[in-house]
Amino acid sequence: MNLSKVRIAVVGATGVVGREILSILQSRDVPAGRIAALASPRSVGASIPYGSGALTVRGADSAELAGVDLALFAASSAVARELAPQAAASGALVVDNSSAFRLSPGVPLIVPEINPHALRETQTRIISNPNCSTIIMLTAIEPLRRCGGVRSIHVSTYQSVSGAGQAGIDALTHEIANGSKGHESPFAEPCFLNVFSHNSTVETESGVNGEERKMIEETRKILGADTLAITPTCVRVPVFRAHSQAIVVRLDRAISEFDARRAYENAEGVRLVDDRAGNRFPTPLKAAGGNDVLVGRLRPDPAIELVGGRSDSWCLFACGDQLRKGAALNAVQIAELA
Amino acid sequence: MNLSKVRIAVVGATGVVGREILSILQSRDVPAGRIAALASPRSVGASIPYGSGALTVRGADSAELAGVDLALFAASSAVARELAPQAAASGALVVDNSSAFRLSPGVPLIVPEINPHALRETQTRIISNPNCSTIIMLTAIEPLRRCGGVRSIHVSTYQSVSGAGQAGIDALTHEIANGSKGHESPFAEPCFLNVFSHNSTVETESGVNGEERKMIEETRKILGADTLAITPTCVRVPVFRAHSQAIVVRLDRAISEFDARRAYENAEGVRLVDDRAGNRFPTPLKAAGGNDVLVGRLRPDPAIELVGGRSDSWCLFACGDQLRKGAALNAVQIAELA
Repeated sequence: MNLSKVRIAVVGATGVVGREILSILQSRDVPAGRIAALASPRSVGASIPYGSGALTVRGADSAELAGVDLALFAASSAVARELAPQAAASGALVVDNSSAFRLSPGVPLIVPEINPHALRETQTRIISNPNCSTIIMLTAIEPLRRCGGVRSIHVSTYQSVSGAGQAGIDALTHEIANGSKGHESPFAEPCFLNVFSHNSTVETESGVNGEERKMIEETRKILGADTLAITPTCVRVPVFRAHSQAIVVRLDRAISEFDARRAYENAEGVRLVDDRAGNRFPTPLKAAGGNDVLVGRLRPDPAIELVGGRSDSWCLFACGDQLRKGAALNAVQIAELA
Repeated sequence: MNLSKVRIAVVGATGVVGREILSILQSRDVPAGRIAALASPRSVGASIPYGSGALTVRGADSAELAGVDLALFAASSAVARELAPQAAASGALVVDNSSAFRLSPGVPLIVPEINPHALRETQTRIISNPNCSTIIMLTAIEPLRRCGGVRSIHVSTYQSVSGAGQAGIDALTHEIANGSKGHESPFAEPCFLNVFSHNSTVETESGVNGEERKMIEETRKILGADTLAITPTCVRVPVFRAHSQAIVVRLDRAISEFDARRAYENAEGVRLVDDRAGNRFPTPLKAAGGNDVLVGRLRPDPAIELVGGRSDSWCLFACGDQLRKGAALNAVQIAELA
C-alpha cells in the first residue's frame, strides 16, 4: 500500500502510540489532508501538530471511518473490538495495535522482517500488530533464528514506563519532581529509583503475568511453533522510553560467532552495538527515538561447551524503542507491505 | 566468635561496605572501644559516627592490625592482597570482602545459610566473602536447591549503582541533579533514566563480563559443583541500593509448588513477598536496608510441562540489599560462625 495515495484514519491519535504513528506518517511525506485523526470524545476538537500545520481531532466512530482505505488503530482493545470490524466492513484495511485480535485464528500477527508471508496468505481485512516486547525480542533474535532455528528462549525484560502510556510517563515525571508516588500512578509500586514486576495482571494459578503470556503466545503464533519453549520475566525500570531485554536463545543447530555476527550485519531492522573493549553496548537511551532494535553483548552461552568453535546457545542484550518498532513503526510497515 | 568479646579491625571503614559493617557491629552491641576503624591515608583522622559516640579513622597498616582478633576487610583486592596475610600471620581471623582470595584453593568462600561446613573443614585464617550478586542469587535459590538440587541457572540482574561504591552513588545523584553525566562517573553510560550492561571489564574472547564470571566461578565453588551450568547477564539500573535478579533454576528433581513454598517458609535469610492478586512482589526499595533476601514471582517455568503437578524448573524474582546480605552482613555472619 502506497501511504501517500490513500485515505488514512489514525484511531487513538492523541495517545503515545497514536502520536508516534503520526510522526512516522509525516516522515513518509503523507499529506495532512489525507489523514483523519480520531480519538475519544474528550479529545475531540484538540489540535495535533503535523508538519508545518496541524490536525484537528475528530470523534472515533463508524461515520468517520467510512471511506477510509487504511485504519491504524492505537486505542484500547475495547475500542478495537467495537470499531475495527466496522472499519474493515466499510472497506478499510485495519492494522490494530491492541491485543483484541492478535490470537484470533485467521488474523495475521505480523513482524514484517519475520513473517511477511502470513500477510499474503490471508483474506481478512484486520491485521494485528504484536505486543511491543514480542516485536523487540523477535527482531533481536531473527538473525540467529535464520542461521540455526529456535529451540527455546529465556528472556528478562527491562521495560520503560511509557509502555503504560502517557499515565506511565506522568507517573515517573511526578515521582522525579516530588520524590514520592502520585495518586494517579498506574503502577502498584514507586517507579523512580526502583524496579518492579510488570504491572499487568498476574494469573492466580500459573503465576505468569499478562505481558509474559503475550510474549509466549504471540511468539508461538508468529514463528508458527505452537509449543516453542519460552520463559519470560517482565519487569519495569525507571526509563522513559525503549525496552531492554536480556535474552538467551537456544538454537536447533550450533553456529559459529563469525556466522552469528555476519547474520546481524545482513539483517534488516536490527543493528549490532557491541564494543567489548570499550564496554559500549545497547542502552534504552541509545535506542529511544530510533527505528532499529540494537543488539549487543552477543556471546556464546558460557554454560554450554563450544564444539568446534560453535554453540547452539547464544546470549544477547537488546534495546528497542517500543513506541516505534514495538508499535507505531511496525504497524506502518505492515500497511506498507499489505 | 562472640563479637562483643574480641578486638575487631574494619579495614576500609569509610567505604560503603565498611560503614555498613560498622552499622551491623553496632546492632550487635559491640563496644566502640573494641573496634579499630582503618582506612587509606587520605581518611586518617576522620571521624565516623558509632552509637552515641564516634570512631577516629586510623591508617590501615600491619602495626594497627597487630593484636586484632578479627579483621573485617572491605577494601580493594590490592589492599587485601597486601594486608590480609599480615593480619592472619599476626593471629587475626580475616574475613575479606574483596575478590583477592575467593577462588584460591584452601580459602573457604562462605554463605552461612548454604555452606557453613566449608568453614569447619579449613585451617586457613583467611575466609572470603562472595560477590554480592552471587550471595543474593544463592540465598534466593537455596530453599529450592534443598528440595530438588540444582542442575542449571539462568539469571539476569538489575544491579544498583551503590555496587560501584560511593562513586556510583555520587554519579546517580549528580545526574538526577544536573540531568547529565558527570566527569567523575565510574560508568561508561549515563545511569539516570537508563539501564546498561555491568561496568566490569568484558573478556575480549568470551564476551563474558567480570561480574558474570564471578557469579559463575564463585557459585561453582560454594556449591561444590565444578561444572554447574550458569548463564548470567549483569546489568545496572538507576536504583541506589539493593540488587534485583530474574532467576530461572532447573532442578535435579521435580517438586510441587506446595513443597517449594514450604521450603521458603522454613528457610533462613530469605522471605517470600508474593502477592499475585495484588501484584505485590519484591522491589529494591523494599529490600534496601533489610537483612533478608526477598523472593517473589515464584512460579513453575511456563515452558516446561507440569508432570503430576510438579516441575523441575522454577522462575523467581529476588531483591537483596547488596551492601548488607550481599557484603557486610554476610561477612559478620561468617565471623560469628567461625
